[in-house]
This record gives sequence, structure tokens and C-alpha cells, in this order.
Amino acid sequence: MARSVESRTPRARQTAPVKSQAATSSAAATTTGATPPEGVDGRRRVVVESPTPCVDGGAFAAKRTLGERVEVEADVFTDGHDLVACRVLYRPTGEPAWREVPMRPLTNDRFRGSFVADALGRWEFTVEGWIDAFGSWRRDLAKRDAAKQVTEADLEVGARLVRAAATRAANEPDGDADARALDGLARDLGRGELPGRVALALDSRLKQLVERHPDRAFATRHRPLPLVVDPVQARFSSWYEMFPRSASSEPGRHGTFRDVVARLDYIAAMGFDVLYLPPIHPIGTTARKGRNNAKAAAPDDVGSPWAIGGAAGGHDAIEPALGTLDDFRALVREAERRGIRIALDLAFQCSPDHPWIREHPEWFRHRPDGTIQHAENPPKKYEDIVPFDFECKEWRALWAALAGVVEHWIAQGVTIFRVDNPHTKAFPFWEWLIAAVRARHPEVFFLAEAFTRPKVMYRLAKIGFSQSYNYFPWRMGKRELTEYLTEVTRPPVAEHFRANLWPNTPDILTEQLQHGGRTTFVQRLVLAATLGASYGIYGPPFELMEATPREPGSEEYLDSEKYQLRHWDLSDGTKPGARESLAELIGRINRIRRENPALQHDRGLAFHSIDNEALLCFSKVAPQGTDDADPIVVVVNLDPAHAHGGWLDLDLAKLGVGDPDGGTRADANTAPRAVQAHDLLTDSRFLWHSGRNYVSLDPRSIPAAIFRLRRRVRSEVDFDYFL
Amino acid sequence: MARSVESRTPRARQTAPVKSQAATSSAAATTTGATPPEGVDGRRRVVVESPTPCVDGGAFAAKRTLGERVEVEADVFTDGHDLVACRVLYRPTGEPAWREVPMRPLTNDRFRGSFVADALGRWEFTVEGWIDAFGSWRRDLAKRDAAKQVTEADLEVGARLVRAAATRAANEPDGDADARALDGLARDLGRGELPGRVALALDSRLKQLVERHPDRAFATRHRPLPLVVDPVQARFSSWYEMFPRSASSEPGRHGTFRDVVARLDYIAAMGFDVLYLPPIHPIGTTARKGRNNAKAAAPDDVGSPWAIGGAAGGHDAIEPALGTLDDFRALVREAERRGIRIALDLAFQCSPDHPWIREHPEWFRHRPDGTIQHAENPPKKYEDIVPFDFECKEWRALWAALAGVVEHWIAQGVTIFRVDNPHTKAFPFWEWLIAAVRARHPEVFFLAEAFTRPKVMYRLAKIGFSQSYNYFPWRMGKRELTEYLTEVTRPPVAEHFRANLWPNTPDILTEQLQHGGRTTFVQRLVLAATLGASYGIYGPPFELMEATPREPGSEEYLDSEKYQLRHWDLSDGTKPGARESLAELIGRINRIRRENPALQHDRGLAFHSIDNEALLCFSKVAPQGTDDADPIVVVVNLDPAHAHGGWLDLDLAKLGVGDPDGGTRADANTAPRAVQAHDLLTDSRFLWHSGRNYVSLDPRSIPAAIFRLRRRVRSEVDFDYFL
Repeated sequence: MARSVESRTPRARQTAPVKSQAATSSAAATTTGATPPEGVDGRRRVVVESPTPCVDGGAFAAKRTLGERVEVEADVFTDGHDLVACRVLYRPTGEPAWREVPMRPLTNDRFRGSFVADALGRWEFTVEGWIDAFGSWRRDLAKRDAAKQVTEADLEVGARLVRAAATRAANEPDGDADARALDGLARDLGRGELPGRVALALDSRLKQLVERHPDRAFATRHRPLPLVVDPVQARFSSWYEMFPRSASSEPGRHGTFRDVVARLDYIAAMGFDVLYLPPIHPIGTTARKGRNNAKAAAPDDVGSPWAIGGAAGGHDAIEPALGTLDDFRALVREAERRGIRIALDLAFQCSPDHPWIREHPEWFRHRPDGTIQHAENPPKKYEDIVPFDFECKEWRALWAALAGVVEHWIAQGVTIFRVDNPHTKAFPFWEWLIAAVRARHPEVFFLAEAFTRPKVMYRLAKIGFSQSYNYFPWRMGKRELTEYLTEVTRPPVAEHFRANLWPNTPDILTEQLQHGGRTTFVQRLVLAATLGASYGIYGPPFELMEATPREPGSEEYLDSEKYQLRHWDLSDGTKPGARESLAELIGRINRIRRENPALQHDRGLAFHSIDNEALLCFSKVAPQGTDDADPIVVVVNLDPAHAHGGWLDLDLAKLGVGDPDGGTRADANTAPRAVQAHDLLTDSRFLWHSGRNYVSLDPRSIPAAIFRLRRRVRSEVDFDYFL
Repeated sequence: MARSVESRTPRARQTAPVKSQAATSSAAATTTGATPPEGVDGRRRVVVESPTPCVDGGAFAAKRTLGERVEVEADVFTDGHDLVACRVLYRPTGEPAWREVPMRPLTNDRFRGSFVADALGRWEFTVEGWIDAFGSWRRDLAKRDAAKQVTEADLEVGARLVRAAATRAANEPDGDADARALDGLARDLGRGELPGRVALALDSRLKQLVERHPDRAFATRHRPLPLVVDPVQARFSSWYEMFPRSASSEPGRHGTFRDVVARLDYIAAMGFDVLYLPPIHPIGTTARKGRNNAKAAAPDDVGSPWAIGGAAGGHDAIEPALGTLDDFRALVREAERRGIRIALDLAFQCSPDHPWIREHPEWFRHRPDGTIQHAENPPKKYEDIVPFDFECKEWRALWAALAGVVEHWIAQGVTIFRVDNPHTKAFPFWEWLIAAVRARHPEVFFLAEAFTRPKVMYRLAKIGFSQSYNYFPWRMGKRELTEYLTEVTRPPVAEHFRANLWPNTPDILTEQLQHGGRTTFVQRLVLAATLGASYGIYGPPFELMEATPREPGSEEYLDSEKYQLRHWDLSDGTKPGARESLAELIGRINRIRRENPALQHDRGLAFHSIDNEALLCFSKVAPQGTDDADPIVVVVNLDPAHAHGGWLDLDLAKLGVGDPDGGTRADANTAPRAVQAHDLLTDSRFLWHSGRNYVSLDPRSIPAAIFRLRRRVRSEVDFDYFL
């Protein structure tokens, strides 16, 4: 609707959403009412609410990875019947100007727009909405026209809106052509026969022209929300953990970085892209632990790599038995050549022999008798570990020193850090450290190893950890797996938490693996590697299916590499006495992950109904627009003791494949309108129709299937039918 | 654990939660690492997250009512194993000092504390958490003691903590006695036999003393969250709407305020405490609507009260046919004497004859030909209504004038306003108006009549409306009612939205009421009056069960009072030709509401499983600690055509009544351990056991039961058994 005076106002300026204001009386008020205060513009009628992605109202950055399309949504509405228009404003933090992209309406006042996160590091985005006066007028004109009620005045109102758009265009760089076109159209709206003018008014070309020059004088802009763009590997990574000390080809000899280099082809053949090493620093001798965590070490016991620091140095030094700094750099280079990144373990604690104990006693707690306070969780004592005192007066110097350690290893080419028990160090420290490091090195990211209470785990993710260990090792049954994986792959958790799924670690040999046999190792491997875009195994114990605990009821490995050297025969049963290995299967699974983008994202995870409690079924899809991204459907038999079959309820249309009404056997020789389900583990192929399809899995052969759903059935390919 | 240097720091100061900081390098750094910036205190290890009650992260005030106990919760945790302690800080906004109350742990790092909101208006609260060093030491000492590991050093650590508490106490007003006691206890901790000292350390008296003087030097305080404390009536109110124009005792004569005064005893006898009147202002003549919304009025048609403004004035004037300002004041007084508040209708729009059209043309939109733009929703036109232009240049003067209108009626004694279609006026206006008015008059509150899209309705509640109309009239079936009432009585919605349940309004005669007969009116009345702590009816059409629509398929009343005078015979069938009335039943139901605090709160609503789709069952409980507040269980037969029975699954223990294992028939003559269910509508009494109990309802007698569950069965009372 036209106003009595045309306004030519500059483009929308940033403003905070309207807050409640206390009343202030003013002598200028014409009545006993109060006057609205300065700083509030009552003409900003549009509301912008509930933008996503969002973590704790914007207190923390939501997470995406490089190259991902970021879908932004918000509720945008106003009073009355006017239409609104809105855009996403976004930019890498620090860029002076906002980039913009239009949003389109979903339902119920929600709008969506998107942009591609094409640079690492911190970004910010927001949503701006304004009244779409022209769009509202146009919609109303169509209704008036349908009711044969259009008047001259109605068209004049529209002409004024078009002229106003022309004025705005004229004031913009490169807007002159549009301004002239709009002026011309405004004139045409004002003359001639009514039907022609109405047609012109409703013409989409006019709409598009006007939409290029919206009146954002009274726009409402939400406050900006932060986003952090992580490297792709933060989302999609396949981790292999090993102890260098056990990498020697000779039993009994301490392994070195050069031995690890010799292991690289084996690891690369299995298809891993991250090699994670426990701490590589000098190990203390005072109170050193013996084999199987014995309180006292025998003279040749190697101790725990987490008891960091000795005569050879501390966190920026290397355990001499492993090699030199040059050896380490060579390892990083050789790994890189095979597409593998080295991940180091940051364990911010000291052995009693760490140089800092002597050089910086102020960084540690001391007992009243002056002796240093070692780690403990009464009544348990860990005399080989001394924790830092994050409440000490010299906390700034401590923070700086720890940051220096991280910078040192980044300078050696390390871009991934697995952090040991971050929940036992102050949260403000991690928040600052990760931000400071990533401001300079946005390609670096951190994995939190915090097996603790859920809110603590989620807090660590919010304050900057790009990946997190989680409860996966202990989620074994159908309902537990469904509930937990749903929790961590949906907002709000998924906006800040990325679960890296590990079936085993040096500290975790689950009872399930202890008793379950080969088929259980395979089951857990498939679950981890398909439920999780990022997963890891602690090898060689995993691929060699090591299953002996230190004692019954314990989750510790017997003769753990944490406390002694081991020697692993990786020859997969080719040598006499050697054990069978899952290495080849792992290789196949990692290849399936690399070749199927659907498995490289967690947000596209959904669970499906199958009428057998022992069978778990879920699907993964890649974001829309991803090339060569067929959906993946995984079925896992969770029962290691029995074969199971069941009817799977799969909505093929929802997965974006096949044809809702499928084909029948009679149609088989014509192009069937169904979808081919290709089990990538066994290379079997099945034809699935929408509705229920039967699957069965025998743990004696393989307890899982990873189906790729082909969008088109090509008749030249052999396939099997299920009845 | 002791630090090497004792610190005597002042009490906790307010600080913002730690934010992420970009790295800043500093020449003072001893390594290549960055230095933490000023303004971040890394020693603040405690995290305070997710406080409630909270609306949009604190952007809007959560709502409570005067005298309610406000339960505050938050997640409070830290790194490692240290215990945390926390308090709620709260105060009416503007008070200089915070009041404090301790919080107790729930599970999973969540804590709860509470305070009583004992003044109207704006409050603020927050949560502050700190390391409980003494509590941690004490807990660890108990574990060491159980493992027989206590050493001198352990006790010395504790003694130092106690001495530090003594120092803090000495620095507080009135803390000298505690300081002396603590010093003494610290000395005793340091000498004598170990067992005695351990016992002293674990003694609860020492714990309580130390807890009075916590070390909050490094406390974390969350940012404050706003709360608004409304009058009790904002939560619990029983509304009666009537048209004064139809209140005359003589058919055909225009009713007056004096006639309304004469109606007050009738309304009070029914038990209502709010009398809501449609707009009482002069009605325009230009384009006046005729009977049944005819486009043109006949000469004696009275027009719509929502077409406000004429020769006699505008929004601060009174329609002369109703009486004078003195008459209105007298009505307010007479109502007040009967415990009834008058609620006025704020309809911020004008008839074409409103004085402001002439005096302030700048407040309205004009068409290109200069004529005023009346309301329309193309192709519908409302020529008797002219909306304000909230985008006009003189919006501030417009806001001030509208605020002046509200102040004028407040000065006449009005404290409740029902706002007509607030969603067609600018949201920033309401946000400012309501805050400005309530800053001066916190006892005033506003009801939003916005039957529109959900996000718009919720936004209006957030920006200040204390009650809201809602979708209740159209929620008829068991699942709809359960889902919708659950949505609006739980967080997040319930923190800002209070649903006032109306089975009918002058604009809404639902098809259900049109066809359902008396039993449906009773059903909808019971649902509204028990599901809603606040409810209302539009009478006399409701109690006289008026059910004729203007035409089939319409929700408009035939011959609606909106457009003509009516005359209602309220004699309840005592006069010949008079209709039956529900007035007596309404009175009984309102008395049940007044006598049962459980029905005066919405947060205590829960639905229960009953194995008959036609039977809806729900319970209400009052907040813990409310006197004489037995739980209420309501069962409603939603089928007006058939009697229905079903087995109700009620967890009596969860409702706080009875005994989980109930009694058996054999025990009947001893005191049965079960609960008496007293149907307050029929005065029937039943004995219910935990587990399943049978209920049945016949719509031909009464389609609902309102059971009060008596906590003890008194043997002197007669009761019926169900088998």
C-alpha cells in the first residue's frame, strides 16, 4: 500500500532485534502515555527467530566442514498479511562485507537458504528479513483480479512501488539499467487498458526486477551466529592406533619411528588415513609402572607412555628409544606420501621426572610437607603421574607453555591431536588453546578422549573439540544403538559434537569382544565403520582379534602394550602359528567408505524398521547434490550365535531411489521399477521393491550387509531375486 | 588440596562466562605459544549451563505469578573429580543486591534451588557455581579412611581449608563467631589421635560451618535471566464475556452499564472473577454493518462495537447508549465488591468516523486518490474499519496516544485487557506498550486474542501477553487434546505462553457445539475448566446452549450480538418458554476450581492411559507444599452419543496418594491402603487401587467426572467399591 510520501532510504543497516524497554516519560507525550525511547525503531515489523544451525543460542560455534553446503533456516514473519522476504548473510569472520543469498519458504513461517563453506576457520552468519511490499501488492492484485475488483488506485499503488524500486536501483552501483527498466514498467503500469496493465503487473519479469532491489529500510537483522569450518577429515576419517614401541620386526626389540615407517604400507593397504600414536615423549622412571600395571617396574620394563617426562625432556621431546626428531619428521612425510596424517596424543600431565617439575614447581600442587601431589582418585593413587594445577597463580605462563608444545608439533607437520582425558583439565584452558591454535592453523583439529558424564562430553565439543570419543563401545543392542546414534547425529547435539566410533582402545576391550569371537569383531567393525563417518580401531589387537582381558571382569588387555613391548605377527596366518587377521576385510570396508560419499556424512543417518530384534537396519545418504552418492543401507545381525532373517520396511522414495509402486515378477524382463540392492561386502545383488523386503544374515559367514542402492537397474547386470 | 600460598580473596565478583578468544601473541610468551588475553580468568573452572526457566536463551522473560515458588535449575560441573556448589542469585530488577539460596544436586550434573516470587513485576536471576574444595577434601578423606590410608598431610590439607574459611568469615559482617569456631576446629584437626581428628573432619557441624563461608574467588556466574511475575489472576482466572448492549431487562432496549451492574450477582453466583466486555466506545456510522454482518445497516441497527469512534469520541470515550464514565466507574466498583475484575477489549483500529481520522490523518494509510485505506484481506473488504499504519513517520506519537488510551482506562480501575487481533499490529509496539504499562502498573495484564499461526501466537506471548487464546476450540478428539495441551503446558512453551481455554466466543460457535446438544456443552465446559487454570465462556449464549449458526458451515452465531441487540432469559426454565441453563453447573464447577488448588495451575497437568479411545483422562497437581491440595483426576467421555467405560492406568504413587500395593477386598473392613476417589460433580465416591481402575461415563447423565483423590481414606465416610 502506498504511503503519502515516498521515502528514499539507504539500504538496510544492521540493528539488534527489538528489546523490551522500560517506560520513560517524556514532556513531549501528547497524552498521559509514555513515549517510546530512542534506539527503538517501531517500524521494524519483521521478526527473525530461531535461526539454525545454532549452539546454545550462539554462545558456541556450530560445526561444518570445508566444502559443505550450510543450510540456514529461520522463522521469519510479521504482523498482518504482508509477505516477508529474507536472506542469509554470511562471511568468514573478519571479512568487511556480508555475502548474501536469498531464502525460500518452507512451511509454518520457516525459511531456508544456504551457502558453501569454502574456507577453513571461523565464519559468521545471520538472517535478515523485511516486508515484501511489492510481493504483497502483487498477491493481492491477483486476488482482486480474480474477483474482478481491480481499480486504478490499485494499479497506481503498484506503480509507486515500482518507481521506488527504480530509485533504489539508481542509487546502487551497476543499477542504472534496472532503474531505467523499472521506470519504464512503472509508466506502463499507469496507462492503457486495465487487463494489459494487470498482466504486466503479474508478469514474473517485473517481479524478478523488483526483487533485485528490495526496500530493506526497516529490515530486521538477527544477531550474527558463529560457525566453524573444519577440515574434511574432521568429518570423515578412518583412524588406526598403534604403539610404535611394538612395531619392530624383531620380537623383544623396542620399536622405532623407522619401524613405523615400515608399517605404513600395511596401514595404507587397509585404507586408513589417520595414524594415531600414543605419547611419543620421554617416559619417567620414578614410580614407573610395570607390566599389567604393576605398581613397581622391573628394570627393563618400559613404563607407560602417558607418564611423560624424564632426563631426555618433556612434552616437546622424543623418547630416545623411538628415534630422533628427524626420524619423526620422516615418518610424517612418509605417511603423507601414502595419504595418511599422523595424529599425536596430547597428555597434559607429567611424570615425577618431567623437567617442568623442577623448573616450574609453581605449576603443580604440593602437599603440606612440600612433596609434589601426584594424581589420585581416592583411594586409588597414580604415583607415576603428576597433574598440572590449573588454579595456580602462574596459570598464564602454564597455558602459554602448553600452547607452545602444540605449536612445536604443528611445526613438525602434525595437524591432528587426540587429547587424553581433557575433562581432567580446566575447560577455559581448552577453549582458549583450541581457538588460539586454530586461528593460526585452521587445518588443525582435536579429538577429545573423554569417557565421562554426558554434559561434560558435550561441553568439550562445544568449546572446540572437532571430534569426540563417546559411548559407542558399550552400545550393543538394537535399541541402545538406535537411541544413542540418533542422539548424536541430530540437532542439537550434532551441531557441535562429532562422534568418532571406536570398537576398542588400549583401555577398552569390551566384554562383548572378549567373548564374541570373530563374528563379533566383524559386527562391531561394520557398525563403527558405517554408523560413523569417522571411526577408529586400536591395532594390531583389533585386526588380530586379541580378546584376552587382564583378569575376568576387566576391560584391560592382558599384557597391554601400555606397559610392555609386544610383537605382532601381521602375516594373516601365512606363517606357522600366526593368527588370522581381519586386515583384508578392513581394507575392503575402508574402500567402501572411500567410494561411497553417503558413508562420509553423519547427518544423513536414519534407522529403519525391521521385524527382528536381532537385526539392526539403518541408512545413510549424502547431502543433496553430492556426485555419485547412492544411498547406503546397512543391515547387521547383532546376535553372534544365530542366523536371523526379517522383513525390512524401507521407504525407497524417501531414500530417493526406485519407484514407489515397484515392479512385479511378471515385469521382470522389462525394466523393473524397483531398485537394485548391491551388497558391497559379498557382491550379492538383490532386487528390492518399496514396502517390505526380506534380508537374512548368518554370523557364520558374515553378520552384516552393506547395500548400495542403485538408482537404476541396468539389465546387463546379473541380479538375484528374493521371492 | 592445599596450595603453596594461602589466598585471601574477596567474595566472588560477577563475570561473564568465558568466551572464545582469538589468539594474541605476546613478547612475554616463553615459547612460540600465544598468551591468554586479559579479561579471561583461566582459574574459573566451573561451567554453568542451561539454566531454567529460560525463554529463547534469555531474550524474553519467563513467566511466573505472585507467590509462586520459582524452581531454578542449571547444569553445574567442572573438570576432574572436584565437587561443585552453587546458588541461585535472584532479585526484583533494580534492587542493588542479589538475594541467594543454595541449590541441591539432582542427577547428571543438574542442580536445583528455588525462591518465592513475592512481588509483582520484573525480576532477574542467575546461577553461580564454584569449586567446593572443602567438600571434595571431606569426601576424599572418607574414602581414604575406609581404605585406612589417612595421613597427617591429608588432615593438614583440611586444616588449611578450614583456616581459610575462618579468614573469610572474619572479613564478613557478623562473621566473627564463625571465624573463632572455625579457627578452633582447625587447631583441633591438627592435633590428637588420628581417629578423633578424622571424626571431627567428617562431622556435619564442621561441614555446615565451612559451607557458610565458601571460597567464591573463582566462581562462575551465568549471565542474568529475566523473569516477570504476574498477578495470580494471570494464572488462575474464570472469565465471563457478555455484551452490555443486551443486558437490559426489557427486550429491545439498549443495555447500559447499570444493567450490567444488575447482572453482577448472577455472574458472581456462577463463580466468575473476570467480566470481559467487548469494546465500550462510540460506534461509527459510516459503513456500519447491519444484522448478521449485512453490508449496510438499517436505521436502528447498532453496528459492531469493534468499529470504534464517532461523534462522541474514540478509544477513551464511552458509547453514550451504554452510559457515562461515572456509570462505568460504578460498574468497576460494584464488580470489585463481588470479587470480579472488569476486562476491557483493546481494539486498536478505527471506524471511519473516529476523531483521529480527522485529527491525525498521518496515522493512517491513504490511497492514491487521498481516501483513507480501510481494512481488507483481498478480495474481502471491511469498510467499517480503518487500521493504523504502524509504519508511518509519526509512529512515536501514535504509540504514545495508544499508550495514553490504556493509561486512561487503568485510571478508571481496569487491570485486565483483552486485546483484539494483536497479530495485525506491529510486534515492537506491543512489546514496548506492555512493558511500559506494566513497569508502572505491574498488576495489569493482557490477554492476546490471536487465532493465527503458531509461531505468531507464541511470539506475542514472549513479548508480553500474559494469557493467550489458542486452538482449544478445535481440539476435540483424545489425541488432539492430549498433544496440544501437553505442548502448551510444558517447557519451552509453558515458560512464556498461558493458554486461556474458551469453548466459545462471539466469533466461534464450533460445529461440535452446533450439533452436539447439552451433553457436548457440558463436556466442553468441563474440559476447558479443568484443563485450563484459566478459562472463559461467552455468555449467555453458552449457558443457554445457543447453537444456531448464521448458516450451515459457518462458525458465526445467528443474529449475533455483535451486530444487534439480544435479550436473554436467564431464568433457567422457570418462566414459560424459557430455555434450560447450565448456570448452576457452571457455578458448581467454578466452586470446584476455587476449592482445589490443583486446578489453579497448568504445569501440573499430565495425561493418563485409559483403554477406551472415547475416554480422556488427565490429572492435575498443585506445586509441592501447597496447602489442602489434593490431586484432581478428570475423566471425560468425548462421545456424546454413547456411554463408555474403560480401565484407567493411574500411578497413584506418582500422584502422591495412596499406597503402591493398595488393599484387597478381603481387607475392606480394616483401613484399606488405597485412595478414595471423590467425584466432585456427582458426589459419588470410589475406592481406587494402584494399577487399573474402571470408570464409566454416560453422556445422558453427565459426560465427565472430576475426582479428588483423598490422601487418606476415613472409615467414617461412605464409599462405593468397584469390583
